[in-house]
Amino acid sequence: MVRNIHRADADTIATLERLGVATVHEAQGRSGLMQPYMRPVWRGAGIAGSAITALCHPGDNWMIHVACDVLKKGDILVVACSSENTDGGFGELLATSLKALGAKGVVLDIGCRDASEISGMKFPVWSRAISAKGTVKASIGSVNLPVVCAGVSVKPGDVVVADDDGVVVVPRLDAARVAKAGEEREKKEAGTRARLQKGELGLDIYDMRKSLTDRGLKYIDGPLD
Amino acid sequence: MVRNIHRADADTIATLERLGVATVHEAQGRSGLMQPYMRPVWRGAGIAGSAITALCHPGDNWMIHVACDVLKKGDILVVACSSENTDGGFGELLATSLKALGAKGVVLDIGCRDASEISGMKFPVWSRAISAKGTVKASIGSVNLPVVCAGVSVKPGDVVVADDDGVVVVPRLDAARVAKAGEEREKKEAGTRARLQKGELGLDIYDMRKSLTDRGLKYIDGPLD
Amino acid sequence: MVRNIHRADADTIATLERLGVATVHEAQGRSGLMQPYMRPVWRGAGIAGSAITALCHPGDNWMIHVACDVLKKGDILVVACSSENTDGGFGELLATSLKALGAKGVVLDIGCRDASEISGMKFPVWSRAISAKGTVKASIGSVNLPVVCAGVSVKPGDVVVADDDGVVVVPRLDAARVAKAGEEREKKEAGTRARLQKGELGLDIYDMRKSLTDRGLKYIDGPLD
Amino acid sequence: MVRNIHRADADTIATLERLGVATVHEAQGRSGLMQPYMRPVWRGAGIAGSAITALCHPGDNWMIHVACDVLKKGDILVVACSSENTDGGFGELLATSLKALGAKGVVLDIGCRDASEISGMKFPVWSRAISAKGTVKASIGSVNLPVVCAGVSVKPGDVVVADDDGVVVVPRLDAARVAKAGEEREKKEAGTRARLQKGELGLDIYDMRKSLTDRGLKYIDGPLD
Amino acid sequence: MVRNIHRADADTIATLERLGVATVHEAQGRSGLMQPYMRPVWRGAGIAGSAITALCHPGDNWMIHVACDVLKKGDILVVACSSENTDGGFGELLATSLKALGAKGVVLDIGCRDASEISGMKFPVWSRAISAKGTVKASIGSVNLPVVCAGVSVKPGDVVVADDDGVVVVPRLDAARVAKAGEEREKKEAGTRARLQKGELGLDIYDMRKSLTDRGLKYIDGPLD
Amino acid sequence: MVRNIHRADADTIATLERLGVATVHEAQGRSGLMQPYMRPVWRGAGIAGSAITALCHPGDNWMIHVACDVLKKGDILVVACSSENTDGGFGELLATSLKALGAKGVVLDIGCRDASEISGMKFPVWSRAISAKGTVKASIGSVNLPVVCAGVSVKPGDVVVADDDGVVVVPRLDAARVAKAGEEREKKEAGTRARLQKGELGLDIYDMRKSLTDRGLKYIDGPLD
Repeated sequence: MVRNIHRADADTIATLERLGVATVHEAQGRSGLMQPYMRPVWRGAGIAGSAITALCHPGDNWMIHVACDVLKKGDILVVACSSENTDGGFGELLATSLKALGAKGVVLDIGCRDASEISGMKFPVWSRAISAKGTVKASIGSVNLPVVCAGVSVKPGDVVVADDDGVVVVPRLDAARVAKAGEEREKKEAGTRARLQKGELGLDIYDMRKSLTDRGLKYIDGPLD
Repeated sequence: MVRNIHRADADTIATLERLGVATVHEAQGRSGLMQPYMRPVWRGAGIAGSAITALCHPGDNWMIHVACDVLKKGDILVVACSSENTDGGFGELLATSLKALGAKGVVLDIGCRDASEISGMKFPVWSRAISAKGTVKASIGSVNLPVVCAGVSVKPGDVVVADDDGVVVVPRLDAARVAKAGEEREKKEAGTRARLQKGELGLDIYDMRKSLTDRGLKYIDGPLD
Repeated sequence: MVRNIHRADADTIATLERLGVATVHEAQGRSGLMQPYMRPVWRGAGIAGSAITALCHPGDNWMIHVACDVLKKGDILVVACSSENTDGGFGELLATSLKALGAKGVVLDIGCRDASEISGMKFPVWSRAISAKGTVKASIGSVNLPVVCAGVSVKPGDVVVADDDGVVVVPRLDAARVAKAGEEREKKEAGTRARLQKGELGLDIYDMRKSLTDRGLKYIDGPLD
Repeated sequence: MVRNIHRADADTIATLERLGVATVHEAQGRSGLMQPYMRPVWRGAGIAGSAITALCHPGDNWMIHVACDVLKKGDILVVACSSENTDGGFGELLATSLKALGAKGVVLDIGCRDASEISGMKFPVWSRAISAKGTVKASIGSVNLPVVCAGVSVKPGDVVVADDDGVVVVPRLDAARVAKAGEEREKKEAGTRARLQKGELGLDIYDMRKSLTDRGLKYIDGPLD
Repeated sequence: MVRNIHRADADTIATLERLGVATVHEAQGRSGLMQPYMRPVWRGAGIAGSAITALCHPGDNWMIHVACDVLKKGDILVVACSSENTDGGFGELLATSLKALGAKGVVLDIGCRDASEISGMKFPVWSRAISAKGTVKASIGSVNLPVVCAGVSVKPGDVVVADDDGVVVVPRLDAARVAKAGEEREKKEAGTRARLQKGELGLDIYDMRKSLTDRGLKYIDGPLD
Repeated sequence: MVRNIHRADADTIATLERLGVATVHEAQGRSGLMQPYMRPVWRGAGIAGSAITALCHPGDNWMIHVACDVLKKGDILVVACSSENTDGGFGELLATSLKALGAKGVVLDIGCRDASEISGMKFPVWSRAISAKGTVKASIGSVNLPVVCAGVSVKPGDVVVADDDGVVVVPRLDAARVAKAGEEREKKEAGTRARLQKGELGLDIYDMRKSLTDRGLKYIDGPLD
């Protein structure tokens, strides 16, 4: 277990939270997105925070308890597992604890239980499954070492952004740059949105008709039947 | 790309929309149902419309933009992919565009992003996944040629019916006949429903006791333990 | 088909319903939980009842109709299938019938259709899929013989507990003992919850620091980067 | 752990082994077949034997070692797991041990490692996955209590039949009856096979033409295009 | 059932068989490939033939028997199913029959049983699963109407090409054109292969260095660590 | 693209190759194993080498060609993909090229085509699927930057070990230590193997009887039925 980590600055994290997963993912060049099997336990949350990482073993959630010892207000706990497993290693008692400690949410490459209570508490959780299956506290893993969670490499202190679209990880040292790129993208999209709402076609806004013809798209009047 | 297609008449489409996926699927002899992995991005929509078909390549949504050029009010865009892929090739900007153009909804054999915004807009989308992963605009596919989407063959102009139960496709030339069969089924079910609500058994309503005995069902009083 | 079965007593069932799936599963030693692919058709229900078991064949729901003949108020119908299948063998008409007969809910190792209507009726259903695909009534299976449903062996009269976390099965003869163990667990958890809410760590409440060191957990101050 | 179990008689087991999985499964009325994800580690083995059952926890193979203590010559070890897991809890050392003890083979609802060595030893193993991931020896499960393995309920002493087609379980008390039914089926199939080899059609051998017409099959000369 | 169909000419079919699945798939513009879950029951076969199509229902193989009535020497039977199912609807007896009738092989979007016997007979079969689970003969489907098999639309008389890489379908009217394109591709590849064997790089043979730089690939000498 | 990387020394790599995946995985503390969906295209190969990493986009294999430019004799090419995809981006022509350049093998988190030809060439390939689906050369990814492949983080120069059990990755700086630990493990296992072959039980060799009793395992004589 590593006690102390570097974190990105608060303004950057706030910007990334506001931008949301889809925009952040685009802004950092379409990388860092966890597999789409990671789903929110309840719909509607959107958060960003610094990653505290834990590596557990299948059917064992001991390292989540250990991670609570180093978690600071605004952090997001990222739980990886040493093999594919859906047991419900995180439930309402742990959610109560993390909420009391100021954690923003949890990202689990295992299962979550007490789905109903956690939804009622509005504590944000993303997981690969919902499963009532409890776990033991018997095997040593790690806390705040790099892990692979749902197909993405996560280092402690990386910025995790999560909403209804999934979970994306921004390396800490890239966070400010990605936040800035995301804001630019946001501005550009606002203009595009206004034109689309009036019924203009993306084909014209993005000026794509010529390249379609160049690439060989053929037009037939039809109907063919 | 084929510009013009035949469509079923509006009354037939309205009837199929009211009947819903389960009844329509039964009424056309249990065929045309997409694989059950096709799920609505938000629960509660129920639509029917004429299929505009697009074939994209994995990680590429260019043909969706092209399809906007031929889409008419009331149409449903059906997006197939040349190989299994869950990238989020459809998001809030495209939803804004399709809504402005009068499309009723979208059926995606790929992923959908901006799930939260699209749910807020109440724009109906069915997809095989929710994924923030954006896509490029680089490869030519087709628009308004026959495609296979989620295991079903779809020709442009076929009637697509979609609700919380999934997505069913009715060939254009069968649409009137299926709508009529569905209405008959609906009437019959109303009678059955009334009897079931009073506590009558399906065994008696459908007169199945004799055939059960004929097929060899044996009755034991029990309990066995 | 076996007509009569033994059931657990009503108080025990009521206690198990109140405790919920996660607590019951822990209380009986982490056994009896169905696979996590079993999901509620709508979120928010929590029920317990005596199992009426039915074994169907793929694409065939005849035995569900037969089971209605022996179902009593408060029972839960558990439907297994002789091979992996997601067809929608249970829909709104059957839900209407079971509701009229007093059933508390249904657990399906097949698909469910009419998801929207069943959600509107607030009739509790857990299933492995939502699929509009209707089924025939042609093959004889069994009613009230032991079945394997979603990986768990279920005997008629066993207590089925189901909520947003999934479905757990308690053997009838263990039900009173498990209910009692669950209530004790509940009491203990209430104390823990209060301490966690104040920000105490699980590490201290469960007194785990020494065993962590014994097992070899090493502490590094960090940061490492 | 239960030390002693009843076993079916050796002649019955030998007959079931010769008949093979597909015939045995038919002969007992199409029941008892494990999910098709259970595959042989190497192709070509065909065995039958009495089930010794073990229930392990994910990532833990301790109970396999315990089971060796009660395993007799000709037995087949059946390993279930308390949650879905593919870790390689069985490898070449355990295969060496089981071979020395006279076991006929192993059926694993977890993963198998040392696939190459085990294939070289010609020791028969069926598993849900091949995975090099080793396991710990830390959690108590059970030996020779009933388990659910790959969707099938297995009691100690049941006859397990396994070959390239998968794994089927015959309840001990049904074994003699099923073996007899299988032999009759075998005889009948030999006659059918001879006729099919000469080019006779199943339609005629099984006399199905009339029932096809009765059920509504329509014949069109075609071609349709 | 449709008795007569058009077939592609024998020379074209022979060419497509020789070219194999990967080359044919490229030659027709990367379309018509079945999902990669379709695997050969035994490795090493490579065939092409005219499609006889059958649509079965889950757990029912009646239409395979019906299809035998119209199958001619050199044909390939393509079996689709009305819902996702892995039951073993095709086994050694049917393989014996089809071999006697001159069929080249079978493509099953269901399961295959008697895997060992069929491998011994060297009768080519591709399927989505191997499963000993037998089926009934109870429901009417169709023979020689268009079907969707493993995600691809197949019309009777289309050319099916299958080998260790999977299964590809060539529309009958495109077959000659695709065969020709495939032969050209083959010739070109022979030249490339010779150069690659000498150690030349694809980067140089295909002259890709400039477009890489144009697209923004940057070169760093490294090492970075 | 990074041209030069550090590699582990040849003796260490040779030792890791001889030890094989299962032993290496244990020797480095049960970490670094790729998901079990990674399977060899043909059985029987066992290799180790330095990782050259490539990140491709779905349906695009351009970066594999680029990687050939920096690949040295004895290296293993590791191909990750920016989203889940099974297209056959590696085939016989690329295998010919890599073989000519001295590569030991390829590890693909995408599909492989020309399975039969590659098996004939005895060129070692591990992949997540076999698929004839060809790919384009259109999108820039990376070569020799860190990637996540089948759930494992791989840096260029890490040692990749692959055999019939799967693929394990050893960080370059740990390689010598892991090789040594593996050899010790190997020695210890040889002694255990000899004792197991004589019929001694693991329970006794590992001295586990006492801890079983301590943990609460209960012994019943049985039989229970």
